Amino acid sequence: MIRILVTGGTFDKEYNELNGSLFFKDTHVPEMLRLGRSRVDVAVQTLMMTDSLDMTAADRDRIIEACRACDETRLVVTHGTDTMVTTAAALAACDDATLRAKTIVLTGAMVPYAFGSSDGLFNLGSAVSFVQTLPAGVYVAMNGRYFPWDRVEKDRAAGIFISREPHSDEPQTR
Amino acid sequence: MIRILVTGGTFDKEYNELNGSLFFKDTHVPEMLRLGRSRVDVAVQTLMMTDSLDMTAADRDRIIEACRACDETRLVVTHGTDTMVTTAAALAACDDATLRAKTIVLTGAMVPYAFGSSDGLFNLGSAVSFVQTLPAGVYVAMNGRYFPWDRVEKDRAAGIFISREPHSDEPQTR
Amino acid sequence: MIRILVTGGTFDKEYNELNGSLFFKDTHVPEMLRLGRSRVDVAVQTLMMTDSLDMTAADRDRIIEACRACDETRLVVTHGTDTMVTTAAALAACDDATLRAKTIVLTGAMVPYAFGSSDGLFNLGSAVSFVQTLPAGVYVAMNGRYFPWDRVEKDRAAGIFISREPHSDEPQTR
Amino acid sequence: MIRILVTGGTFDKEYNELNGSLFFKDTHVPEMLRLGRSRVDVAVQTLMMTDSLDMTAADRDRIIEACRACDETRLVVTHGTDTMVTTAAALAACDDATLRAKTIVLTGAMVPYAFGSSDGLFNLGSAVSFVQTLPAGVYVAMNGRYFPWDRVEKDRAAGIFISREPHSDEPQTR
Repeated sequence: MIRILVTGGTFDKEYNELNGSLFFKDTHVPEMLRLGRSRVDVAVQTLMMTDSLDMTAADRDRIIEACRACDETRLVVTHGTDTMVTTAAALAACDDATLRAKTIVLTGAMVPYAFGSSDGLFNLGSAVSFVQTLPAGVYVAMNGRYFPWDRVEKDRAAGIFISREPHSDEPQTR
Repeated sequence: MIRILVTGGTFDKEYNELNGSLFFKDTHVPEMLRLGRSRVDVAVQTLMMTDSLDMTAADRDRIIEACRACDETRLVVTHGTDTMVTTAAALAACDDATLRAKTIVLTGAMVPYAFGSSDGLFNLGSAVSFVQTLPAGVYVAMNGRYFPWDRVEKDRAAGIFISREPHSDEPQTR
Repeated sequence: MIRILVTGGTFDKEYNELNGSLFFKDTHVPEMLRLGRSRVDVAVQTLMMTDSLDMTAADRDRIIEACRACDETRLVVTHGTDTMVTTAAALAACDDATLRAKTIVLTGAMVPYAFGSSDGLFNLGSAVSFVQTLPAGVYVAMNGRYFPWDRVEKDRAAGIFISREPHSDEPQTR
Repeated sequence: MIRILVTGGTFDKEYNELNGSLFFKDTHVPEMLRLGRSRVDVAVQTLMMTDSLDMTAADRDRIIEACRACDETRLVVTHGTDTMVTTAAALAACDDATLRAKTIVLTGAMVPYAFGSSDGLFNLGSAVSFVQTLPAGVYVAMNGRYFPWDRVEKDRAAGIFISREPHSDEPQTR
């Protein structure tokens, strides 16, 4: 079984037609899984509905604890793209044997699912697939690719995730 | 690099507004990869545009030969769902060392991509991801899952792919 | 108040993912009115769900009787495009004072609403608007235009409705 | 022939996936007319791409002048909903015989057309239809209804346009 932990991000933003702003209501993940005719055994759990630029250290601690505490060993975390790599690093930095034995895949979207031109459904299909086949570790799944947590960065100008060399002062990829 | 071989199927059907029938024009795979913001290095090659119920042994030979002949070792084959398992078996039955060293993932859709409620984008994200991480072999990727070619069947009444035990008279999964 | 009489047609066709055919389930008209944020006072009544090529004289009699019997004097009839003009002529041929005092607008779609590229929502917005402003009579509203029943024909090759001169043997437009 | 004057508004907003904001690029009106299979003879002219809350008196003067100067006597103006009624009043206040002989219909959308759940296509179908059948005057077409310029207000809490009595100090509806 796979657990999908929802934290918000562009993925789940909606358009508020009363004031023209973007906001969060409920997650679209269950609807997206239905659309994808998914038959993967999943539990969907909403941890928070947050723009990842507003995510605090306390929010990240909640994500880490939720990843650690659940029975599932294969986890997808939906997350805003702007600090997805930061949360991935926080998960990887956690020195907990239970957590280290899990495969954790973070994914998100550049365009809200509720929009016509969203990459969300593609990304969810991708993340749900990578999480079934990758060994224990923390990964980002975006743009049809997967990246170990310490070999990825968001190219904000291009709006894509790209490979990078690990920083010398980073802990090694476990 | 990944090669995507297009053979038609529901995936690529369109609505002919002049006579109300469904038909094939061009494949939607490149447009779908753009929508998914895919940055995977792919070559898309259209082999045929066929309803899989109309697929002949000669058509399957063309698919096998295309899988064998290309340089890529990771291949996605888009295919109608009705005989997807038959083509997977034909690919697996081919006693060719080059082919046996490749990871081949067949996928398709229950609803045409051009429709609002298609599973196509989810499935393409899934297949493109599985093909990057699964070992050599022939697989079906549908419903967010992957199945070795000899452990899958389509449940036509439910419209989903399900696991089955290999038949005793089948060649072993390589 | 406006009455919308649903008779089927391409407008309301859906994709059956189990066998790949197009079929009728429920009408999409109420969902479309919600999407259009319509605040027009309407009653939606499903008379039949029929491909207009299969529509019989008895079906047309039911449509005529429903138009005559209801209290509303402004009616929209959703209808398959292939015989929309035939039904419009049947309505106009009916020598009934109650019916002749009503504004009846037939509309439909070239592509099912459930598809991404449907003209249905545009046509429904158009028909609901024309019916509020046109004088008593029977009209076809398609392609953003309205046509009196005896001055319109479907150009099947182009998939559009065009003006034509009334036939000399036709009853005069009332 | 109908002239469609584009001024921006929610109708034409798009999602900027690099920074998560809404912005204007090109108008979607021609694409929407294609989707609606419109065969109405129209000229589409982009005057500005403005959020109607940012619209200035100078912007309104440009709209009035464009309405006056063009040869067409039937005009649709796409406009943000927040100040649509203000622009309608400015058009109606203009004491110019040429302008007063024209039918001018303002319309817009509560949700951007580029989103899945937009009312834009319905509203465009509605406005293009009302403009063909209403007598000279200035109108707002929203929610499937039309309102003379001095008998309408936006109910911001509900996100809809509603009827109101003309103010006693207003010039009479011409």
